Amino acid sequence: MAKIKVGIVGYGNLGRGVERAIVASENHELVRIFSKRPGLSSPLNSKFELTENLEKYAGKIDILFLCGGSYSDIEVIGPRAIKLFNTVDSFDTHAKLDKYITDLDKLAKQSEKIAVSACGWDPGLFSLMRLVFNAVSPANSPANTFWGKGVSQGHSDAIRRIEGVKNAIQYTVPNEKEVKNCTTKVNYVPENSNKHFRECYVVLEEGADANKIKEEIVNMPNYFKGYKTSVKFVSEEKLKKMQEKMYHRGEIIKHYPSALSENNSRLKFTLDLDSNPSFTAEMMVCCSNAIVNFKKEKKYGAYSIFDIPPIALSLENRNELIKKYL
Amino acid sequence: MAKIKVGIVGYGNLGRGVERAIVASENHELVRIFSKRPGLSSPLNSKFELTENLEKYAGKIDILFLCGGSYSDIEVIGPRAIKLFNTVDSFDTHAKLDKYITDLDKLAKQSEKIAVSACGWDPGLFSLMRLVFNAVSPANSPANTFWGKGVSQGHSDAIRRIEGVKNAIQYTVPNEKEVKNCTTKVNYVPENSNKHFRECYVVLEEGADANKIKEEIVNMPNYFKGYKTSVKFVSEEKLKKMQEKMYHRGEIIKHYPSALSENNSRLKFTLDLDSNPSFTAEMMVCCSNAIVNFKKEKKYGAYSIFDIPPIALSLENRNELIKKYL
Repeated sequence: MAKIKVGIVGYGNLGRGVERAIVASENHELVRIFSKRPGLSSPLNSKFELTENLEKYAGKIDILFLCGGSYSDIEVIGPRAIKLFNTVDSFDTHAKLDKYITDLDKLAKQSEKIAVSACGWDPGLFSLMRLVFNAVSPANSPANTFWGKGVSQGHSDAIRRIEGVKNAIQYTVPNEKEVKNCTTKVNYVPENSNKHFRECYVVLEEGADANKIKEEIVNMPNYFKGYKTSVKFVSEEKLKKMQEKMYHRGEIIKHYPSALSENNSRLKFTLDLDSNPSFTAEMMVCCSNAIVNFKKEKKYGAYSIFDIPPIALSLENRNELIKKYL
Repeated sequence: MAKIKVGIVGYGNLGRGVERAIVASENHELVRIFSKRPGLSSPLNSKFELTENLEKYAGKIDILFLCGGSYSDIEVIGPRAIKLFNTVDSFDTHAKLDKYITDLDKLAKQSEKIAVSACGWDPGLFSLMRLVFNAVSPANSPANTFWGKGVSQGHSDAIRRIEGVKNAIQYTVPNEKEVKNCTTKVNYVPENSNKHFRECYVVLEEGADANKIKEEIVNMPNYFKGYKTSVKFVSEEKLKKMQEKMYHRGEIIKHYPSALSENNSRLKFTLDLDSNPSFTAEMMVCCSNAIVNFKKEKKYGAYSIFDIPPIALSLENRNELIKKYL
C-alpha cells in the first residue's frame, strides 16, 4: 500500500499526539505540520509550514488532521480545509455538532472530499457507546456518561480564549454518589447539573479583572453554564506543573430491565487515560482510516463515528477482521 | 411507520426472549413462532406454526429471527430461510463464522434479501468492542476477552445435541488471575487455554455411557477442545433448578502504551446479565433494525455487526441520534 500522506494543523498537545501516532505508523507519512506560529521545531524532526500557506499543499496531502482548539479554530479551518483536503477533527462543542457536520457535508460533497468529524473520545468513542447501549434498549432510560477526574482539553482551551487569561486548565470531576446510583439502581437518571463538578485553574494576564473573568467562565454557554463550576487563580509556575499530567477518564453506564422484565442488564464502558491528547490523537488516526476506505467507494461527505461501519475503522481486510475479532 | 412483521424460528430460551422483546416493541408485530414441536403455547398468546410450513409465510413476514441452537440448527435453517425472508441470527461457532456469512451473502444477493448474522453479545456486541479497541491501537497486542462466570447457551446446546444426553448446562468461568494480569500489566497476552474453565453439568438418558459422553464433550472441536473442561453428571431435578438462572457476564480489556509511549491507556467494557438469552434477544432485535435501514438502500447481502454503521442499529432519525448521543 502506498503511504497515506498526512498534514497536521495546530501544534498543541493534540497536534503533538497526532504527530507521534503518525510517525509511529507504517501506513502514514507526515508531510507538514501547519501552525500560525513561525519557527517551530519538533523532537521528531517534522517539517513545519505556516497555516496561511495551507492551500499550497493541495494534491500533496491526502488527509489533514485539524488539531486546533474547537471553540473557535475548527469552525474556521474545517470549512476552509475541506475544499482541498480530506479532513479529520475532534470538534467537541456538543451543541453545535449537528449543524457543523451538516454544513461540512455540503462543502465536502461539492469538493468531492471526505471529512470525519467529532471523532475524539467524547464526542467519538463515547458517542459510539451511547448510541449502541441505547439502541439495544430504546424503551429504557438513556445510558449515563460520567467524565473524570481529568483534564478536559476542550474546556481548558475555551478558558484560554478569554481575554485576560494567560493560561488555564480545567478538571472535570464526577459526582461519585451519582456514579454509584447509576451502577446500583435500575433506569436511574441523575440531574445533569449534579453529575459533575468543573474545577478551573487560571493564570491571569497582568492587569486582568479576576472577577470579570470568573463570571465569563461560569456563564460560558455549552461549556460551563448550568454546571457546578469553581474558578481558582494560580501562579504560572503551578499551572505549568499541572499541565504536565493530561490524564483523563470516564465511564458510560446503562443498567436497565431487559426484555424479560424480572432480569436486569448492566453495560459499562470505562476509559482510563494517562494522556487525554494522546488517546484523542489515536482515535483520530483510527477514524481517518474510514477516509481511506470511503474514498474507494467515492463516498464523499462529512461523517461522524455513527456513520462509519466499524470495519472501515481499520485498514485490514474484512475477512481477516471477521476471523480475528468477530 | 408500518409495523415490521416478524417471525421467530425456534422456541427455546432465546426464542422466548425475542418473543418478549418483539411483543414489548411498538415497532414490531409478531406474526408466527415456528417450531418443529407441535402443540406449543405461549403466555403472551403468540401464534405457532410448524417449521415445515415456513415457506407458506413468504411475503407475510419481513424479518425472521433464527433462534435455534447454532451447533446444527442455524446452518440448516439460515440458507433455507434467506431464500424468502430477511433473517437475523446469533450464530456463535467462531471458527465457522467467516464461511457461514460468505455463503449466506451469495444466497441473500440472489434472493434480494438481507441477513444480519452472529449478532448476539459474543459474537456481536463483544466483537464490536474487540474490533474498535484494536483499531484504535493496531500496533499493540489485541484486546483480551473474558467470559463468565455464566451460562453459555451455545455450549449448553452443543452438549444437549450429543446422543445419550437428556439435558445439560455449561458454565464458563474466567481465570481471575489472568483477568488481573490483563488489567494491571501493559500489553499482557495470556495463554488462550488458561483464560477460562468450562464446567459442564449433564443429565444422562437412561442407559447412556457416561465415560463415552464425557470424552465426546471434552474433545468437541470449536467448543471444548483445548479448554480446561470439567464434566459432572447430575439429576434432572438439580439441572432444572440450575437452568432457572441463565445469568452471564464478561469483559473486554485493552491496556496498552499509547502514542506518547510513556503513557498508557486502559479500555474496558463490562457486560453483566441476569439473563443471557434475554439480552441476546435484545441484541438481535437491535441488529434487525439494520435490515429496515439497509432495505431502503437495497443493500442486499449478509452482514455482521462489523458492516453496520452504528446509526443503522436504530430506527431513529440520524439528526436526532447525533443531537442525543454524539
